[in-house]
Amino acid sequence: MADKLTPRSENFSEWYNQLVLKAELADYAPVRGCMVVRPYGWALWENIKEALDKRFKETGHVNAAFPLFIPMSFLEKEKQHVEGFSPELAVVTHGGGKDLEEPLVVRPTSETIIGYMYSKWIKSYRDLPVLINQWGNVVRWELRTRMFLRTLEFYWQEGHTAHATEEEAREETLRMLDVYADFAINEAAVPVIKGIKSESEKFAGAVMSTTIEAMMGDTKALQSGTSHFLGQNFAKAFDIQYLDENNTLQYAWTTSWGLSTRFIGAIIMTHGDDQGLILPPRLAPIQVVIVPIFRKEAEKAAVMEAVDRVHAELKAAGVRVKVDDRDNVTPGFKFNDWELRGVPLRVEIGPKDVQKNSVALARRDMPGRAGKSFVPQEGIAATVQQMLDTIHDNLLARATAFRDSHIFDPQDYAELQETLKEGWAFSWWCGSAECEAKVKEDTKATTRCIPFEQPEGSGKCIVCGREAQQKVYFARAY
Amino acid sequence: MADKLTPRSENFSEWYNQLVLKAELADYAPVRGCMVVRPYGWALWENIKEALDKRFKETGHVNAAFPLFIPMSFLEKEKQHVEGFSPELAVVTHGGGKDLEEPLVVRPTSETIIGYMYSKWIKSYRDLPVLINQWGNVVRWELRTRMFLRTLEFYWQEGHTAHATEEEAREETLRMLDVYADFAINEAAVPVIKGIKSESEKFAGAVMSTTIEAMMGDTKALQSGTSHFLGQNFAKAFDIQYLDENNTLQYAWTTSWGLSTRFIGAIIMTHGDDQGLILPPRLAPIQVVIVPIFRKEAEKAAVMEAVDRVHAELKAAGVRVKVDDRDNVTPGFKFNDWELRGVPLRVEIGPKDVQKNSVALARRDMPGRAGKSFVPQEGIAATVQQMLDTIHDNLLARATAFRDSHIFDPQDYAELQETLKEGWAFSWWCGSAECEAKVKEDTKATTRCIPFEQPEGSGKCIVCGREAQQKVYFARAY
Repeated sequence: MADKLTPRSENFSEWYNQLVLKAELADYAPVRGCMVVRPYGWALWENIKEALDKRFKETGHVNAAFPLFIPMSFLEKEKQHVEGFSPELAVVTHGGGKDLEEPLVVRPTSETIIGYMYSKWIKSYRDLPVLINQWGNVVRWELRTRMFLRTLEFYWQEGHTAHATEEEAREETLRMLDVYADFAINEAAVPVIKGIKSESEKFAGAVMSTTIEAMMGDTKALQSGTSHFLGQNFAKAFDIQYLDENNTLQYAWTTSWGLSTRFIGAIIMTHGDDQGLILPPRLAPIQVVIVPIFRKEAEKAAVMEAVDRVHAELKAAGVRVKVDDRDNVTPGFKFNDWELRGVPLRVEIGPKDVQKNSVALARRDMPGRAGKSFVPQEGIAATVQQMLDTIHDNLLARATAFRDSHIFDPQDYAELQETLKEGWAFSWWCGSAECEAKVKEDTKATTRCIPFEQPEGSGKCIVCGREAQQKVYFARAY
Repeated sequence: MADKLTPRSENFSEWYNQLVLKAELADYAPVRGCMVVRPYGWALWENIKEALDKRFKETGHVNAAFPLFIPMSFLEKEKQHVEGFSPELAVVTHGGGKDLEEPLVVRPTSETIIGYMYSKWIKSYRDLPVLINQWGNVVRWELRTRMFLRTLEFYWQEGHTAHATEEEAREETLRMLDVYADFAINEAAVPVIKGIKSESEKFAGAVMSTTIEAMMGDTKALQSGTSHFLGQNFAKAFDIQYLDENNTLQYAWTTSWGLSTRFIGAIIMTHGDDQGLILPPRLAPIQVVIVPIFRKEAEKAAVMEAVDRVHAELKAAGVRVKVDDRDNVTPGFKFNDWELRGVPLRVEIGPKDVQKNSVALARRDMPGRAGKSFVPQEGIAATVQQMLDTIHDNLLARATAFRDSHIFDPQDYAELQETLKEGWAFSWWCGSAECEAKVKEDTKATTRCIPFEQPEGSGKCIVCGREAQQKVYFARAY
């Protein structure tokens, strides 16, 4: 707290790194590229987990746990999969003091080992669909790392499903993408665009990858969750076959989908400001902080009585509330501290509030006077809950407006290049890997997704000028 | 389901292995010594987690996540710790296609890396106590493995706390042991004995290890949870120091405590019978299964109407209930199936029950007529909840009676040896490692714990005959 954060406008990346540390979301681990998720960050992740897990269970999924270690030979069974992942593997070569006969890979993702188990479990059409999710840790040996955004070890969920028909598997792929979008928008107040990844950007081993893409505060894109239709690629590699109703052996159709601790990065960079985090109310570990204010000891008893009463009422109503009763720091210090940590709403109670039976509310999303109001103590729980909803709506509207004002429709390739310095481009694209590669080389921007929502008609590819049937988002990305 | 389980009396170990597979709690992974925890087993673990996590939070603890990988040099900083764990390590030597400069150990437990982080975070007495827990996976390269009981990778929680004084740390150690005992008894209906581990059985690096010990159905002991007072051993190894109120630098005092998926083994082997699992009601993923019974299509509508109504009432009351409406198997098959899976209570609804506005209840803990009753549909939720409590109490009483009738007080060493073939011995022990080792060599039994509850006075060591101040439990153990 001693030093101010570097302003976002000055150095967004530095602002981010400082904020993760100062808000005590995470810390650097003594292993290169790994992080320690500190209690405040982990509580945020637990709320994310709970919101997602509820949605997974409502859509018929169950959780399980598959091994951390995968035999190297498993990865090699799906050609594109191993090509995609082999540069990023951590390999166990020694166990119990001996060299292993076959090296074990620390899972970078679990399609292979889960595919192997599914081939044991699935025999008949009656065993399908299999709808399993796993919460866990995975390891990808990345060279350039950033806390939450890209770490060697990260935490995520990976859903893996097997179906009797292609249609069902495709439906599942889109259903889970919808679940992610619903979660992002309605829990995290992060507006996302749903679409399909280009061939060069898709998951190694997928037939089709879908994604939700969000715009961060520096206008870069962040892939925030992906859902893959794997066709029969893994079913054939791992022999996941079932007897259909006519007693004919068929390969199953599979999907996988994942959302990770990376999403915490999305929350930080979508909502945060120069004072610190702004956490979306429905996920914030602490939704409301109460700061008692008194100068003289004589005022303390009356103030604390009101504080305790308001605290009890909010708690009983299910609000995640904390009283900051530290006696070694000033109220001003506390205000800054909780602003840094992004608590959505602050309740101040001083001697005047006690007299008037009121409290002061200060919204984190609107600094200064604009976000301040005085409300009666009576009915405080309902007032606060309504205010939290209002804050959610405001965060979402603000992020959506920011995003939409930074998506451009450049008229030619020169303008595209300029555009990509300050936002996204939504442009006609012929679909060729060459045009995609050219943009990447010239601007470092990649195709983020071919959104499901497309304008009518067709146009000219922004790169080569050929006829194009679809528009795509180009953006620099995390 | 096709084949019956091997009876417990015939081969307890075989019964256990078959049951884990047939009840679909877990399956063998394609990596030696690893398991796949299947959805039914994982749902049981999720309920265990929830029950424990609630208790951890109530006692002021927060969750966090520390890295999977630990630099080899960290383990070497605490001499006893590295001696204890080095034979069991899995080692990552390659990452991203290159040899690592320093090999990384896949954590077997996290005292070292957490100690390192605590030394960064703890500066002043105001930062203490630090009360952090972690839910995660760890790896110990075991040679002989059994699903849940001993696997290379297992799931657990590990609490790690740091305190300003020895007294506080000792209190914490015992507080968490009490939490484990309370959980075991009141959630899992597993009676446990609390006590202290002998010097030779304690955790590598601890000053004192405490444990809860349970007796399995074959009379072997299972260490079901441990809580360690680590003194200043890790604080000194990792330089966890703080400035006290007098501005003097002091080493902190630390504890650690853990309970793992091993506890699922304790549940299986404490309560299970020759028909299968008997899950304790408060942890069972499915507490109640409703089986509709009808022969003719004409009966179906009325039966299903009652089934749906009872289902809705139980669900609304928070009971974890499932309707088994499979149409390709008989009610008899379903009864066996859910008995195998240990669902505590079965509700049967047939045409006669519809007429009488009643249902039939069948208790899993009491097979046959003795466990069957007919109750009114009215007030079914309250009836069922009461019955689940009754089942819990019965399971606990039965397991306690079984245990107590298999704890003996042998009069001499010859009798001790006989005793240990069919139960535990509670005997005076002089405390010497030699006597402990002799018993182990002669009988394979180890000291399980020196219980906190001790008889008055003193006696003669059962092994050497010397004066002894304490009684200890000897038992063969998992």
